[in-house]
Amino acid sequence: MDKATLINEIRQKKTYLCVGLDTDLEKIPTHLLAKEDPVFEFNKQIIDATRDYCVAYKPNVAFYEAYGAQGWTSLAKTVNYIGKTHFTIADAKRGDIGNTASRYAEAFFKNMPFDSITVAPYMGEDSVTPFLQFEGKWVILLALTSNKGSQDFQLMQENDEQLFERVIKKANTWGSSQNLMFVVGATHPDYFKRIRKIAPDNFLLVPGVGAQGGDLAAVTRNGINKDCGLLVNSTRDIIYASKGTDFAEKAAEKAMEIQKEMEILLLQNKFL
Amino acid sequence: MDKATLINEIRQKKTYLCVGLDTDLEKIPTHLLAKEDPVFEFNKQIIDATRDYCVAYKPNVAFYEAYGAQGWTSLAKTVNYIGKTHFTIADAKRGDIGNTASRYAEAFFKNMPFDSITVAPYMGEDSVTPFLQFEGKWVILLALTSNKGSQDFQLMQENDEQLFERVIKKANTWGSSQNLMFVVGATHPDYFKRIRKIAPDNFLLVPGVGAQGGDLAAVTRNGINKDCGLLVNSTRDIIYASKGTDFAEKAAEKAMEIQKEMEILLLQNKFL
Repeated sequence: MDKATLINEIRQKKTYLCVGLDTDLEKIPTHLLAKEDPVFEFNKQIIDATRDYCVAYKPNVAFYEAYGAQGWTSLAKTVNYIGKTHFTIADAKRGDIGNTASRYAEAFFKNMPFDSITVAPYMGEDSVTPFLQFEGKWVILLALTSNKGSQDFQLMQENDEQLFERVIKKANTWGSSQNLMFVVGATHPDYFKRIRKIAPDNFLLVPGVGAQGGDLAAVTRNGINKDCGLLVNSTRDIIYASKGTDFAEKAAEKAMEIQKEMEILLLQNKFL
Repeated sequence: MDKATLINEIRQKKTYLCVGLDTDLEKIPTHLLAKEDPVFEFNKQIIDATRDYCVAYKPNVAFYEAYGAQGWTSLAKTVNYIGKTHFTIADAKRGDIGNTASRYAEAFFKNMPFDSITVAPYMGEDSVTPFLQFEGKWVILLALTSNKGSQDFQLMQENDEQLFERVIKKANTWGSSQNLMFVVGATHPDYFKRIRKIAPDNFLLVPGVGAQGGDLAAVTRNGINKDCGLLVNSTRDIIYASKGTDFAEKAAEKAMEIQKEMEILLLQNKFL
């Protein structure tokens, strides 16, 4: 999905919600465990229930890898099931040198039809650019993450520049806002204005709203740009809203609730 | 495999070679392609041929992921085939927050019997410590990598400390030399002395000798410690020494050649 289409989807559906698919056999309703592929069955029902309220889905690859070859099959089925109506994110946080990065790109962009992959910047340019070679695909680069450990290294400062800022500035010389987004955690709302100065046009993928305590209104106010420019992820609040047979219905309710909140914020911030 | 056993293996076999298994269907001998699982068949023959000359094997996970569920199966068969005689490294460069990191650890430490996994430090403490919870398992943390892009962020400097140094210092407060190694590229031989000042006891996993141009003698002279403390990886020079039916024989010859060179260096540097 290209940038113009993504912006149009946000405008039409009045939502910039991304639903995280961290599907865990220990957390999904027990009645699904008898199915042949419980992970896919869960995802399928969650996707059907939430399609109208979100513009993106983000399977967290670790949760699939934990089930080995079977998990890998469930992941492929899931991204194929989502289809081309939504922006798809392989949340894989890969990062390795050139020829290895190309193999990761092959796994997620050729063998599976993901629109984008999250990438860790530590190894620098040649670990990022192989993903950018794929026409029509996106890199979502970690900049300032939502977790406590984000303070260990990402805020390191040389002269007037912190590491996450250097990551954003350098990466924007390797790609553009047409194929490069950044991860910025909702737990750092005060940083969004600074980030918009160096990344005025890039979409930002924002985890950390909900379970991790981030504030959607503050993130939106400080991070929105003329294209909306935000994909805000929510996972546990939606997909684990209920452990009963009504899990899909409750997921839909929660996703709709967030969509309504986002619609108001898009109006307040003059995007709509 | 624990540290004492690893040191003993190095001493007995007079080698600190790690063989990389970046197995690529486009590079392996064509006569193997008719086999049911060509990737595993190739690995099996390489492992049989090189066992005596190395102490570790390092499958590069990207190369398996690129083959989807089948690749994942080949990877599991490979690590099981290596067995407990060698130190096994899942070169996965994972890095994500707590509950996600735990899933990656499950994939490589519980579902597969890897001794260790390479981890990217960008997300900080809570992305590293979940791997350290696993008794008897190791984290091999990226510090100063061998690629050109290592200069983009890893050398960032705040006061007297560069990012890779901060990574090493902080990580050694989360783990110890019994469960934590660092990746230091052979392409930076001058840095090894500085690194030994802040990581005197940790093993260092050293890529970049051979195809990437690193100098084994310089790395050994500057990086060796009382336990040897080095695992030097070689991949392409060994596993792709021949594209013919003699590929395993040629791999053995190349691995033996490196082992002989290492034996001399261990003597010269007074480890043996």
